[in-house]
Amino acid sequence: MKKTSQLKQLIHSRNLEFLMEAHNGLSAKIVEEAGFKGIWASGLSISAAMGVRDNNEASWTQVLEVLEFMSDAASIPILLDGDTGFGNFNNSRRLVKKLEQRQIAGVCIEDKLFPKTNSFLNSKIQPLADINEFCGKIKAMKDTQTDEDFIVVARVEAFIAGLGLKEALRRADAYRQAGADAILIHSKRTDIAEIESFVKEWEQRLPVVIVPTKYYSTPTSRFQKLGINLVIWANHNLRASIDAMKKISEQIFREKSLVRAEKKVATLEEVFRLQRVDELLEAERKYLPSTGTNSDDYP
Amino acid sequence: MKKTSQLKQLIHSRNLEFLMEAHNGLSAKIVEEAGFKGIWASGLSISAAMGVRDNNEASWTQVLEVLEFMSDAASIPILLDGDTGFGNFNNSRRLVKKLEQRQIAGVCIEDKLFPKTNSFLNSKIQPLADINEFCGKIKAMKDTQTDEDFIVVARVEAFIAGLGLKEALRRADAYRQAGADAILIHSKRTDIAEIESFVKEWEQRLPVVIVPTKYYSTPTSRFQKLGINLVIWANHNLRASIDAMKKISEQIFREKSLVRAEKKVATLEEVFRLQRVDELLEAERKYLPSTGTNSDDYP
Amino acid sequence: MKKTSQLKQLIHSRNLEFLMEAHNGLSAKIVEEAGFKGIWASGLSISAAMGVRDNNEASWTQVLEVLEFMSDAASIPILLDGDTGFGNFNNSRRLVKKLEQRQIAGVCIEDKLFPKTNSFLNSKIQPLADINEFCGKIKAMKDTQTDEDFIVVARVEAFIAGLGLKEALRRADAYRQAGADAILIHSKRTDIAEIESFVKEWEQRLPVVIVPTKYYSTPTSRFQKLGINLVIWANHNLRASIDAMKKISEQIFREKSLVRAEKKVATLEEVFRLQRVDELLEAERKYLPSTGTNSDDYP
Amino acid sequence: MKKTSQLKQLIHSRNLEFLMEAHNGLSAKIVEEAGFKGIWASGLSISAAMGVRDNNEASWTQVLEVLEFMSDAASIPILLDGDTGFGNFNNSRRLVKKLEQRQIAGVCIEDKLFPKTNSFLNSKIQPLADINEFCGKIKAMKDTQTDEDFIVVARVEAFIAGLGLKEALRRADAYRQAGADAILIHSKRTDIAEIESFVKEWEQRLPVVIVPTKYYSTPTSRFQKLGINLVIWANHNLRASIDAMKKISEQIFREKSLVRAEKKVATLEEVFRLQRVDELLEAERKYLPSTGTNSDDYP
Repeated sequence: MKKTSQLKQLIHSRNLEFLMEAHNGLSAKIVEEAGFKGIWASGLSISAAMGVRDNNEASWTQVLEVLEFMSDAASIPILLDGDTGFGNFNNSRRLVKKLEQRQIAGVCIEDKLFPKTNSFLNSKIQPLADINEFCGKIKAMKDTQTDEDFIVVARVEAFIAGLGLKEALRRADAYRQAGADAILIHSKRTDIAEIESFVKEWEQRLPVVIVPTKYYSTPTSRFQKLGINLVIWANHNLRASIDAMKKISEQIFREKSLVRAEKKVATLEEVFRLQRVDELLEAERKYLPSTGTNSDDYP
Repeated sequence: MKKTSQLKQLIHSRNLEFLMEAHNGLSAKIVEEAGFKGIWASGLSISAAMGVRDNNEASWTQVLEVLEFMSDAASIPILLDGDTGFGNFNNSRRLVKKLEQRQIAGVCIEDKLFPKTNSFLNSKIQPLADINEFCGKIKAMKDTQTDEDFIVVARVEAFIAGLGLKEALRRADAYRQAGADAILIHSKRTDIAEIESFVKEWEQRLPVVIVPTKYYSTPTSRFQKLGINLVIWANHNLRASIDAMKKISEQIFREKSLVRAEKKVATLEEVFRLQRVDELLEAERKYLPSTGTNSDDYP
Repeated sequence: MKKTSQLKQLIHSRNLEFLMEAHNGLSAKIVEEAGFKGIWASGLSISAAMGVRDNNEASWTQVLEVLEFMSDAASIPILLDGDTGFGNFNNSRRLVKKLEQRQIAGVCIEDKLFPKTNSFLNSKIQPLADINEFCGKIKAMKDTQTDEDFIVVARVEAFIAGLGLKEALRRADAYRQAGADAILIHSKRTDIAEIESFVKEWEQRLPVVIVPTKYYSTPTSRFQKLGINLVIWANHNLRASIDAMKKISEQIFREKSLVRAEKKVATLEEVFRLQRVDELLEAERKYLPSTGTNSDDYP
Repeated sequence: MKKTSQLKQLIHSRNLEFLMEAHNGLSAKIVEEAGFKGIWASGLSISAAMGVRDNNEASWTQVLEVLEFMSDAASIPILLDGDTGFGNFNNSRRLVKKLEQRQIAGVCIEDKLFPKTNSFLNSKIQPLADINEFCGKIKAMKDTQTDEDFIVVARVEAFIAGLGLKEALRRADAYRQAGADAILIHSKRTDIAEIESFVKEWEQRLPVVIVPTKYYSTPTSRFQKLGINLVIWANHNLRASIDAMKKISEQIFREKSLVRAEKKVATLEEVFRLQRVDELLEAERKYLPSTGTNSDDYP
């Protein structure tokens, strides 16, 4: 099944489904091997891995290149955290074309302004996009896709901006009418109150996606009862890797030795396995002359 | 002090010094914060993080872009694992120019053929470069650098290719005469025998660099006694991150919840700190109009 | 019809067909508008336009990015001048995957070594690839393509290397057996003698492609009679643009005025037309709110 | 002299000075050889050459890559047409860092909103930036540069937006106070009335730069008398190349022959000369082993 169709199915599944964050080809493959059916290409994680901020400091084509490696490394669908679409409707529709070429299954755009600011930051810049402008963007994206199963998720930041339920619903419905395939309703509260209020009024007009980074202690059964369709575990591979790299770097620095560190890290063979070295060795047997090597033999 | 001068100093230090592997901007910063004085930009790690193989599947400019993010994220010097120099002398000297522009302090090239194969793989392709051709490459690189402290390390793969001590010494000395700043002598044995035999005959004609990935159980004091100058811990941040990401992905997949996983990962605040979000918030206060936001106020 | 199928048809056409060189999105569109049915993405032209040499100084992904712009700008098929495939069989098959994603219809690889040297240069490096190694490369590429109409052209450099007809035929036939879709037989003579000798012995075992850059004075009717399938006009847009830019730069420098120069250049409206500005203006009417602009109104 | 110092000198010269447009490495070299002292890296030309529109369809890093090739190809300074700075103050200051690394001498930013629209288009989006926001951007850029001679030119679009002289002066003076090194005053009138009115009131508070694309028939002596410092011939290499490529493509298509076309284009030798092939051949003699080639001899 095409990756787009896989993602569409996930979003419309009767069961609660999950996407796990990845931020490069390696983590994408790890997510797939762990059993997940889809990947969240997190803007925060991708930027943090690069060493830059989640404020569009990396260009959209630099993000696209990371996505291409991810798409090549995994056979499950990827939903891109597409920030604001990287500009206006014209930038966003260009993005759709480029994503389709790289077999990315869908993109989520948020109703803020370029350059975006991470929703969990107390920045003074968290203004929302004009509703009509954002609806035009959604329309342009949907009109551009050539694969009918490509997914556009509209992310509503009304709660993040402190504008309340009514505005959240007004925006979600406008985005639905503009053609969005699903609504991501975002909240930075540590409880599920905002999400719950939204979902109850929303009445499943479109599938609902959530990101419980802040309200992580809410039991998943609660999401299920509320009729949420898709849960995104949004940045935990990145955060696990940070913790692990800090510890190993500190330990090796302190001990000036690998002896004890060695047991705490994946083996070299595991690195090679994840890179699918076996496939290459087999291909060498198939495609390289038996005696020669790169057109050159060493004596 | 310039990054090149810092690296030069490390290589000529009377004490045994260490470089720690990094493969993106994030890990580069972590290495610096752990206390290390320099970074090894590992070809294996960079390719594995991308999800491709250590066989020049990523282009040299894709590697260069990763390096640029690393260089921006860290203030300590970076030594690039430059494979074979990505082609002949002309590609290698072009590389030097591009590295200098991005403030990379030095590059290590190995005497194999493009496309390279990881030295620990039992591939049938491990042919060595012609000595004269490799010496020409070193000369071209040294003639190209504009910063006199830029470092070119010549990596001798004679032991990897099974050619013995005499060939290793012959090559090392040829590379020294061609202008190399240091010799990286590589071995895939699990003991230090090859390295030891080399170092004893070499008699410090040039600084010696080693990568004890396979002979990691050799005590560091032994390296010191042998008069090694620089030890590279070559891929442990990558391997720690693999282990951590596999575990957290599997746990979250299994538990369908973040509750227990949350304690095992770095906090969101730590992610923001590593991205230097504070600097941005301060800059916003300085450069953004007090009332406006992106030329636009939300009602 | 898919671009690959269009190119396949051209190569198997009963009439003599032509590809015209382009080196960026703009020239690709101009070639299409002139009436040509296909585009030659020349390695020499692309590198020269960048300001670098035709010796793989630009990385293969930098070339790929140029190709993506070309592919987006034109609806006719593009055959890439893929040099040696940018490495060994593994690099070449990776290239095929990346070309297919960008809707490039085919690639021509030549039996030389990486980094390549332009065939018309009196460089001392014009060694040919080992036949078996090159056949393995062709097989790997053909096994990789997912679109059955994707074209791999094998370019025989035996005449360029001074090895004569017998070697040219031996190589061409080996490449045919390895799965090549067509043979490009290259010559740097100013007459058609070598090409003619080859074509007569070849007896159309596979379609034949030629590049009459040096023997340009040979009448096209001659190519037709010989049963050549495809002629590539390989670098004339680049060379026309060089001539024109030199003249206009010199004139404007000398006259310190645009008055006389203005008549010699395309109008600004023509630039906009080639960029398809009309489509954008129409899209703005469709997707931008009637009163707002980028979520922001000027007073 | 550093490229930044060269550009600074041009802007402060007592004589009227000129920049000529280039859009890739090739045209940059041609501009230098024609005698010009500086290059205008035109946003319109670079995007048109790529085959996209002058609306930030190409990402800022794609533009940056073109600039790097240009900077490598020419020894005269380049002033980048930096649109709106590709986002807010944070994107703009990041741009400055990246330009400095690539030895670009300066950047001109315009007081419009991202994504920008070409000033000569009758688009409905030509809103101007908030003055304070734009001043913050200028300050951030000037605070970021590490080379004190790096140039930031502020482009005033008040006339383009139909806002008249008073607004143009108000903006220009605010930008001056924010730290701009020069003012580019833009007009789309076919006469010089707007420019003249501005210059007279401006009284050389900062150097003035103009782009007479529309009022090209105004004699240059008039610019000189008005005390203009720098004139940009903004897109004529691109437009000359369009005209030439259309003609040659059409001719070759029609004639199915190179015979007549050959005389109208630069020779192959001229292409090689512009690529500095001589330098490579000489370097091969110096750095390649006399008998071997790429570690491999062909029989």
